Amino acid sequence: MGKNVLIVFAHPEPKSLNGSLKDVAVERLTANGHRVVVSDLYAMNFKATADGADFLARNNAERLNYMEESRNAYENGTQAADVAAEQTKLKDADAVIFQFPMWWFSMPAILKGWVERVFAAGLTYGVGQHGNGRWGDRYGEGKLMGRRSMLSLTCGGLPSQFGPRGVNGSLDDLLFPIQHGILYYPGMDVLPPFVVYQSRRQTLDDWPRLKSEYEKRLDGLFTDGSLPFRLQNGGHYDDQQVLKPGLGAGESGTRIHLLQPGDPPQAMPATTGKA
Amino acid sequence: MGKNVLIVFAHPEPKSLNGSLKDVAVERLTANGHRVVVSDLYAMNFKATADGADFLARNNAERLNYMEESRNAYENGTQAADVAAEQTKLKDADAVIFQFPMWWFSMPAILKGWVERVFAAGLTYGVGQHGNGRWGDRYGEGKLMGRRSMLSLTCGGLPSQFGPRGVNGSLDDLLFPIQHGILYYPGMDVLPPFVVYQSRRQTLDDWPRLKSEYEKRLDGLFTDGSLPFRLQNGGHYDDQQVLKPGLGAGESGTRIHLLQPGDPPQAMPATTGKA
Repeated sequence: MGKNVLIVFAHPEPKSLNGSLKDVAVERLTANGHRVVVSDLYAMNFKATADGADFLARNNAERLNYMEESRNAYENGTQAADVAAEQTKLKDADAVIFQFPMWWFSMPAILKGWVERVFAAGLTYGVGQHGNGRWGDRYGEGKLMGRRSMLSLTCGGLPSQFGPRGVNGSLDDLLFPIQHGILYYPGMDVLPPFVVYQSRRQTLDDWPRLKSEYEKRLDGLFTDGSLPFRLQNGGHYDDQQVLKPGLGAGESGTRIHLLQPGDPPQAMPATTGKA
Repeated sequence: MGKNVLIVFAHPEPKSLNGSLKDVAVERLTANGHRVVVSDLYAMNFKATADGADFLARNNAERLNYMEESRNAYENGTQAADVAAEQTKLKDADAVIFQFPMWWFSMPAILKGWVERVFAAGLTYGVGQHGNGRWGDRYGEGKLMGRRSMLSLTCGGLPSQFGPRGVNGSLDDLLFPIQHGILYYPGMDVLPPFVVYQSRRQTLDDWPRLKSEYEKRLDGLFTDGSLPFRLQNGGHYDDQQVLKPGLGAGESGTRIHLLQPGDPPQAMPATTGKA
C-alpha cells in the first residue's frame, strides 16, 4: 500500500548532484506507489532564522523565550503559516528524507533552521511526563513515533577521511547530533544514511551507479532495518539518564547508544502517542 | 598588551542568559585591556542562508557551485558586503568566541549560516597544496592560524545527560563537528568550551557564580591550554588521512583525534601563513 514520504531538500542549485538525487527519490518512490511531497527549502526561500516573528501572538512580548512561545503557538494555532504548513507535511508523512550537502560537517543552515522552527515544543520536544524520574517522551518515543527517516547526503571528502579513524571524525559520529539528536529524539526510526563521497569528483559516468545504489535504498525505505539506538525509557539508562554499567561493553563515544547483541530486553513504556 | 576579540553572538533575546554572558565577556575583556567587537547576528538580521546572492558577480550564472563562486568572489572582491565585513573582523581578531544556546545539539541556524557564508573558500578551506599526498592546509594549519577560539554555550539538560555515558551523547562528541570541523579546520586553537547546563533552571541566585566562572575563563583566553587535536599534516595520519596504527590507543570515536601522552612528536609543516 502506498505511503506518504516527505523529502526536505536543501541545496541552492536544482542542477546539482543533490538535486538529481532528490529527483531520483521522487521518481522512484512514486513509481513504487508512494505519495511524495518535496519541501524545496531554497526554492521556497524558507526562513532559516528562528525568532519572534515565528509567533503570531506572544505570551510575553517583552522577553522572548523561544521554547515557551513555540509551545504556546503550537497549542493555540498562532504559529507562522509556513511553520504550520511544514508540520502538516511532517505529521502526514510515514517517512522523511533529508537531502543535503554536508557543509562544515553538518546540515546547511537553511535545513537546521527548518528543524528549529518546525520542530515545535509540544510536538517534538517537551512531550510527555517530566519529573519523578522521567525526562519526557524522547529518544525512541514521542509524537513522531512510527515514522521512518533517512539522511541522504553528499560529502566532498574520501570515505577513508570519514572512516572510524579518518581525520574528519567518523561519519557516524558527525551525524550523531542529527540522527540521534534530531530524528530519533522525537521518536522516528532512523535508517542508515545514503552517502555520496567525493561529490565534486562524480561525473556523468558515475551517475548510473549512484542512481542505482540510491534506488535500492529507496526501495527499502519501509523495510530496511533502522539504526538500533537505545530507548531512553526502556531501562538501559538510569534516572540521571546515564547508560547503566555493563551496557555498551567494548564501545565508547556515540557507539554506546547502539544496542548490542546480548543486551537485556528493553521495556517499551506507555507514551503520549503518535501525532 | 591588548588583543582583538571577536564575539559572534547568536540569540534572539538580548535579555537572555546568553545575552548576559555576552555582556560579561565584553566588560571583562575590555577591563583586561582588550578590544572587543561583537557580531550580534540577530540584531544585525544576519542573512543565514548561503546562496547565489552572496556573490556580486558570478563565474557561472547558469549553475551555482557555491565553493567555486566563494573562492572567485573572495579573490576578486565580489563578495556580499556583509560577508566581507565579517571576514575583516575575523582576520583582525586574535581570538573568536561563539556565544550561543545549543539548539538541537548544535549551533543555531543563524550562526551556522554565518560560518557557511563568512568561511570562504580560499580563506578557511581549499587552502594550500592539494594532491601528491597533501590534502591542503587544515586541521591545525591554515589562514586562521595563530588565533584562539572558544565556544560559550548554554544547554537545557543536566551534565549527566551530556557526560561520557549520558543519553544525549557526550558534549565532546556533540561539539566535535564544531570544535574540530569548524574552528580547528582553518587553523585556530580551540579552548575547552564554557558551558552552562540546565539553562532554564538558572536563577538570579546562580548568576554571581556563573559570572565569576565565566570571568575566570575569559581571563585565561590567551593563556589557557587548548584542546590537543592532532595536526593533519604532522605525521600522525597516513596519506589517506587515516590515523596511523598504534595512535589513539585505548580510545575510539572522536577522542582518537586528541594527542595522548607518549605520542610521537608531530612535524609542523610549512604552511600558507596567517591571513
